[in-house]
Amino acid sequence: MSVIDRVTSEFSRLPGVGPRTALRLVHHLLRTGPDESRRLAAAIEVLAERVRPCATCGNFGDEEFCAICSNPRRDTSTICVVEGSFDVGAVERTGRYGGVYHVLGGRLSPLDGIGPEQLNLRSLFERIRSASGEVREIILATNPRVEGEATAVYIERQLRPMGLRVTRLATGVPVGSDLEFVDGTTLAQALEARREM
Amino acid sequence: MSVIDRVTSEFSRLPGVGPRTALRLVHHLLRTGPDESRRLAAAIEVLAERVRPCATCGNFGDEEFCAICSNPRRDTSTICVVEGSFDVGAVERTGRYGGVYHVLGGRLSPLDGIGPEQLNLRSLFERIRSASGEVREIILATNPRVEGEATAVYIERQLRPMGLRVTRLATGVPVGSDLEFVDGTTLAQALEARREM
Repeated sequence: MSVIDRVTSEFSRLPGVGPRTALRLVHHLLRTGPDESRRLAAAIEVLAERVRPCATCGNFGDEEFCAICSNPRRDTSTICVVEGSFDVGAVERTGRYGGVYHVLGGRLSPLDGIGPEQLNLRSLFERIRSASGEVREIILATNPRVEGEATAVYIERQLRPMGLRVTRLATGVPVGSDLEFVDGTTLAQALEARREM
Repeated sequence: MSVIDRVTSEFSRLPGVGPRTALRLVHHLLRTGPDESRRLAAAIEVLAERVRPCATCGNFGDEEFCAICSNPRRDTSTICVVEGSFDVGAVERTGRYGGVYHVLGGRLSPLDGIGPEQLNLRSLFERIRSASGEVREIILATNPRVEGEATAVYIERQLRPMGLRVTRLATGVPVGSDLEFVDGTTLAQALEARREM
């Protein structure tokens, strides 16, 4: 396999990158020259060497504890539970959340062999217990799909005996969307959860 | 800048990769673990170290001469001139071309400061001259856009005194397309260049 074919096939392993896109990326690197390729390779290498899950919440970061967990101004009484570290960024970008996170590293999916043991759930329960009452609310922010919903329901049942507040992100019509393009299930839920103005 | 931000910004430099896609790629690498990242980094590093333009045609390859130029079964009397090495792959995939290539490394674009001196044109003319009559046809396969057309016209003028056959890829309606969706210029050219059945 030629070097170009090898890099193309490596790029193709990335999500959303087909063989044609991969080839285009490789030719872009060839056009821009070896320095550009070396920068990219070095950055990815550092990613492999340095980035690891936070010892507390499982979010990825450069240190033992992630930037959020090591920030003394974050409210540790509220934990937002998300499927992946990607979702932490999504919630952070809202600028409306001051609590901390817990990254599950997936969602329950029996068909793929992902049960409670495969998720960072034990560390969540231990974290709540060891905080001895300091944690007051758990926001379940798993994705509003079948598996994310099942994961939320499972966690809620486990947490119920602990007597803390367990909430779920609201589902409904996305802000700025046209009702015409909103799926029926979402619209039905939005109708049911309608609020006084 | 955190390691994740740095890799994300490096990925964003690739064509067609916006900040969101870049972030998704980085999180994919984090999910799949350091070995996957190291493989990708190593492949890109090898690309930077090993791949270089062919000494004859300018196409990228692992050796001094590319796989096509060093293949004794290729017909060196026909040279297909393309803008980039990406285009070599496109012509090769047709399986209908047995000649060799010459990669210009771009197209004439005065507004971007790209004149004849910035393209691999001198090497094309020298290549034809040093073959002392062996080259019989030049196929100008620059892209059928304004700049590619201008580049083809420029090269044709330079080659005219040499007395060889200079051809251009046919333009017309793409096979399998609907006339409805073909732009007017293409349709006009297809009409003008119509053939007897």
